[in-house]
Amino acid sequence: MITTRITELLGVQYPILQGGMAWIADGKLAAAVSNGGGVGIISAMNADVDYVREQIAICRSLTDKPFGVNVMLMSPFAAEVAEVLAEEQVPIITTGAGSPNAYIPRWLEAGSIVIPVIASVAMAKKVARAGASAIIAEGGEAGGHIGEISTMALVPQVCDAVDIPVIAAGGIADGRQAAAAFLLGAEGLQLGTRFLVATECDIHQTYKDKVLKAKDIDTITTGKRLGHPVRALKSPFSRRLFQLEYDSTVTNEELEELGSGSLRRAAVDGDEQEGAFMAGQVAGMITKEQSAAEIIQEMFAEMETCLRGATKCLR
Amino acid sequence: MITTRITELLGVQYPILQGGMAWIADGKLAAAVSNGGGVGIISAMNADVDYVREQIAICRSLTDKPFGVNVMLMSPFAAEVAEVLAEEQVPIITTGAGSPNAYIPRWLEAGSIVIPVIASVAMAKKVARAGASAIIAEGGEAGGHIGEISTMALVPQVCDAVDIPVIAAGGIADGRQAAAAFLLGAEGLQLGTRFLVATECDIHQTYKDKVLKAKDIDTITTGKRLGHPVRALKSPFSRRLFQLEYDSTVTNEELEELGSGSLRRAAVDGDEQEGAFMAGQVAGMITKEQSAAEIIQEMFAEMETCLRGATKCLR
Repeated sequence: MITTRITELLGVQYPILQGGMAWIADGKLAAAVSNGGGVGIISAMNADVDYVREQIAICRSLTDKPFGVNVMLMSPFAAEVAEVLAEEQVPIITTGAGSPNAYIPRWLEAGSIVIPVIASVAMAKKVARAGASAIIAEGGEAGGHIGEISTMALVPQVCDAVDIPVIAAGGIADGRQAAAAFLLGAEGLQLGTRFLVATECDIHQTYKDKVLKAKDIDTITTGKRLGHPVRALKSPFSRRLFQLEYDSTVTNEELEELGSGSLRRAAVDGDEQEGAFMAGQVAGMITKEQSAAEIIQEMFAEMETCLRGATKCLR
Repeated sequence: MITTRITELLGVQYPILQGGMAWIADGKLAAAVSNGGGVGIISAMNADVDYVREQIAICRSLTDKPFGVNVMLMSPFAAEVAEVLAEEQVPIITTGAGSPNAYIPRWLEAGSIVIPVIASVAMAKKVARAGASAIIAEGGEAGGHIGEISTMALVPQVCDAVDIPVIAAGGIADGRQAAAAFLLGAEGLQLGTRFLVATECDIHQTYKDKVLKAKDIDTITTGKRLGHPVRALKSPFSRRLFQLEYDSTVTNEELEELGSGSLRRAAVDGDEQEGAFMAGQVAGMITKEQSAAEIIQEMFAEMETCLRGATKCLR
């Protein structure tokens, strides 16, 4: 049994969140993770409030455990979604792609626990001052939209800078990495890539197969020129995008336009040519499909073994 | 006291190597680290055999402990230096920037311990098959010439792939990160950035001051377009180089030429405008100058505390 400020704050058995991945993290996956003892997160992505309400209803029909919704702050619907989450009294709200500070008072008033995803010390301090309940410090080895600093370098620097509990994300797929994250100072974990192959995750099988077959070097980062890097598995699309970034006859607007819809093409259509199969650098370690509950149990059993053996090199 | 296959293999008190940083890691610094109970490494960089012999002599005049030399395999003098290291019976040889396999038999025959720096599972397997004694798995958060995969993601994947002991590098500046690296499966550490501010390190004071003042977000990666990324502190030079990579009217040859001499301008001249002050993402954690011996002792004392407290979240 593991007890940290995160298990106590969230009222869950295991201090683990499933990342709020657009086109992937729906009410069904979130419920499976929450039923497994962690915290499932629904991605509000660029969707309107009807979609978000619908996924919350699906999740609530499948679990009575705490769950969350991730607000993508650059979404055109972000403000409306923010209000709906308060109305729905969603237990946990995570945020990405910007500063959630404008919404934090309303969410706290509604009784939600607010956990922004951050990628730097400055942003960690900023959201902590605004009343965030905890933070997710996400390293650049994660999949999808990422920051620059790795989990190993970021987590201790963030832990030194804020008093609220820190959840580590990026580079975590097994119990060794979970144990390492705890020694860096984290009190919880967020996993994305490993939950891509959860049996309850309804992405296209091609996407799952690409994760299962990936090697360590099989991810690529695009979008650096635009200032918002994205990590995905190598594919004809992602390799082409990488090259085009270095072609200064291609405008930033053209690059943005090329990226548009590419994650949907991966997750929904399984389009091996034109899809952006977002995944973290740990894809190379993921070799089997399991239920969300099995993933969580296996991860924490391994982590416990690892922590109990931590002193074996000391004599 | 800490005992791993690395302390046993190298015959040292602490399983820590100081990175072989060009223009930085000379015989004097290497001796200080070795006298501190770790393994100091002289960088052979692009230098000729006279320089390398001289630095080995300086190191040997200052310590009778094991030390090493790092061979930069792309150096025009690599083959000659490789032979000199065998003649000199250098105790430990590390390598970077390519495959050292052609030299490994000669070095092993001369009695050296051979430890290549690698950044992927495939290269780890390749050097292990060729007889490497151990490997240094370096994450992309490190300073200088780097790979893509972070320490958190790389070390476990490499440990699963080879039987020889693995030394973790990249993202390690304090005892928490050292402890985390051990739980990932490493049996030793290599640190570069923290030794930049060792009192025995004779780089320009401007370089040290830049490291001491750096924040978490103050490094930048250039050279991705050329296929060999380099991490340095942000400076007018590094920011300009970053921008020029996205200008396709600038040729790869011009980019290479711009980078040439930039590390020397940082380390020797302290040129804030035109220097490449190479450093890892942990620069933001480094706040004081200390002797190499103090750095090592503090690091392992913190690490031991961290490992002994590893089970505190389990109840």
